[in-house]
Amino acid sequence: MTHRPDASAAPDAATLSNSRFLKALRREPVDATPIWLMRQAGRYMAEYRALREKRTILELIKTPELAVEVTLQPIRAFELDAAIIFADILPLLAGMGLGLEFVQGEGPLLHNPVRSAADVERLTVRPPEEALPFTLEAIRLARQALDPLGVPLIGFSGAPFTLAAYAVEGGSSRSHERTKALMMGDPQTWQRLMEKLAEAVGQYLKAQAGAGAHALQVFDSWAGQLSPADYRTHVQPYSRRAIAIAKEAGAPVIHFGTDTAGFLEDMRDAGGDAIGVDWRIDLAQAWERLGDGVAVQGNLDPAALLAPWEALRARAQAVLDQAAGRPGHIFNLGHGVFKTTPPDNVKRLAEFVHAATQR
Amino acid sequence: MTHRPDASAAPDAATLSNSRFLKALRREPVDATPIWLMRQAGRYMAEYRALREKRTILELIKTPELAVEVTLQPIRAFELDAAIIFADILPLLAGMGLGLEFVQGEGPLLHNPVRSAADVERLTVRPPEEALPFTLEAIRLARQALDPLGVPLIGFSGAPFTLAAYAVEGGSSRSHERTKALMMGDPQTWQRLMEKLAEAVGQYLKAQAGAGAHALQVFDSWAGQLSPADYRTHVQPYSRRAIAIAKEAGAPVIHFGTDTAGFLEDMRDAGGDAIGVDWRIDLAQAWERLGDGVAVQGNLDPAALLAPWEALRARAQAVLDQAAGRPGHIFNLGHGVFKTTPPDNVKRLAEFVHAATQR
Repeated sequence: MTHRPDASAAPDAATLSNSRFLKALRREPVDATPIWLMRQAGRYMAEYRALREKRTILELIKTPELAVEVTLQPIRAFELDAAIIFADILPLLAGMGLGLEFVQGEGPLLHNPVRSAADVERLTVRPPEEALPFTLEAIRLARQALDPLGVPLIGFSGAPFTLAAYAVEGGSSRSHERTKALMMGDPQTWQRLMEKLAEAVGQYLKAQAGAGAHALQVFDSWAGQLSPADYRTHVQPYSRRAIAIAKEAGAPVIHFGTDTAGFLEDMRDAGGDAIGVDWRIDLAQAWERLGDGVAVQGNLDPAALLAPWEALRARAQAVLDQAAGRPGHIFNLGHGVFKTTPPDNVKRLAEFVHAATQR
Repeated sequence: MTHRPDASAAPDAATLSNSRFLKALRREPVDATPIWLMRQAGRYMAEYRALREKRTILELIKTPELAVEVTLQPIRAFELDAAIIFADILPLLAGMGLGLEFVQGEGPLLHNPVRSAADVERLTVRPPEEALPFTLEAIRLARQALDPLGVPLIGFSGAPFTLAAYAVEGGSSRSHERTKALMMGDPQTWQRLMEKLAEAVGQYLKAQAGAGAHALQVFDSWAGQLSPADYRTHVQPYSRRAIAIAKEAGAPVIHFGTDTAGFLEDMRDAGGDAIGVDWRIDLAQAWERLGDGVAVQGNLDPAALLAPWEALRARAQAVLDQAAGRPGHIFNLGHGVFKTTPPDNVKRLAEFVHAATQR
């Protein structure tokens, strides 16, 4: 089995459209199950650490040539079926007026968090080419490098709720107390915040597809902190709106969240050609609930990549077994690659997924 | 409706056995839905902060008279239907030989974490009266204070997995990478660790019932970080063993976890007269999956207690609506009370649950 088309014969758009990844997103039969990994570019790779040594993460993201280089690193190293543009979900908030900083060892900080109606009013939804030109340019450049390799490119954004959680908390949070207090206590301000975020997210995703991204992933990383009822009332309408805007550009959308086993159906109903599920639910059970109308992406525990190969292989096989016989499975982790992951495990995993599913 | 029996007529054991809480645990009809809250004694109460001011948390736990005082604080202040002994899950690990410290602002630290087979061998399972005499004494003293009030007392322990996660990580963790690496990479050492913890947990719970606890709660706070398959293979047998030992004393067991919507049935199958569920799943759906053979405890988002009363009331009513018509519901949060919670919201919530369900 050849992993990718012969690089000497540059594939045209039709070839990429027939790539495993994009076919699986359309739930068409594929020659082998496609695999890519969330955070496949990152600190677990020596090549990445070398680039990062003298630069901040924001410098990498805001310099399109460097963002492209990072995007390509895992594609060169491993048999991965899609690239994802190297970026972060938080510059979108910076583009709306929040002061973003990544503090060594502490994670992201937003210096003027959104806590009141006045704070929400100050947020501006600017055209993506103005607010986030660097990532759109990186997508254009990445396509030039990836097209000859026959590898499709994924653009992405945080979902409105996950971005709202960062904006309100001013950074990461375990319990999202301030976010939920605003959502529950001042639903009108919440609604206005989510409307703005839905518009910004939707336009950003659409612009990424316009710049050349073949598919788009919406990360609702914190949605699973909510009750199903709060998700339905205070989140789902805005995710739906963002995804609807994104879809205007025609690219398929992957809708991903963690801790969502309690309301997978509600997530699906907000939109997405594929639903990304984490490892906290059996893939077969998740798919049974989601039905045949969507592709499914997932769902290996990223911790399995820390285990010896035999333990990793067994868990990867278990994921494949649960998806067997259904078109539309994209192999992935249930969350991002840990920075302690041995790269050789990523290499073997990608090869294994292809070999084990070859048709 | 009288909230509690007349304190002047000291209730005997039979009266307590007929308390709402214990009846609900047996899935018998009750005059109103019982309510207690995880971490109902704690920093959100001024009375607690006053006691804590000059003492460490371990001093409070290890001084039975003070532990009893803290246990009683929320019982005096609110219409709660059960007390839970003031203690912590980690002294059990200290009793097995790990160095435990609570560091201001950082949470718990275990100074000699368990990372190897030799580390596991060093762990000792001592009789609970030797290892944790202070909590057993606190239970005996608390009964003397609670019996005249007609309020039953809950003892508790961490579940084997949650304790293993603390023991291996050496403290709190977001991703439990070391724990999972040990579990997946060295299943024999893992098994030995879990066997010891199951024995220690089971004996500790049984001793608490022997000291007078009317019911026992097993906190598997981190179980939801696992895939259902890993839960079944590497956790469930040891939770089952711990619960089976605990049940030898005859007291009912509440089996609680968070993020467990993906494998509620597996948790139930490990044992427990009641299953505690968090807010990430609709209570009606959780109960449907759990079946009629168990009581259900939960499942309000603790963040709802930060909201204005009307928003809190609506969410509490929604929980009650989902449990309506079924015996065996114990109202609780899906996790512990936040320290930012206004005590008045706890007061109103308890009164509301009783008034709204009066039969």
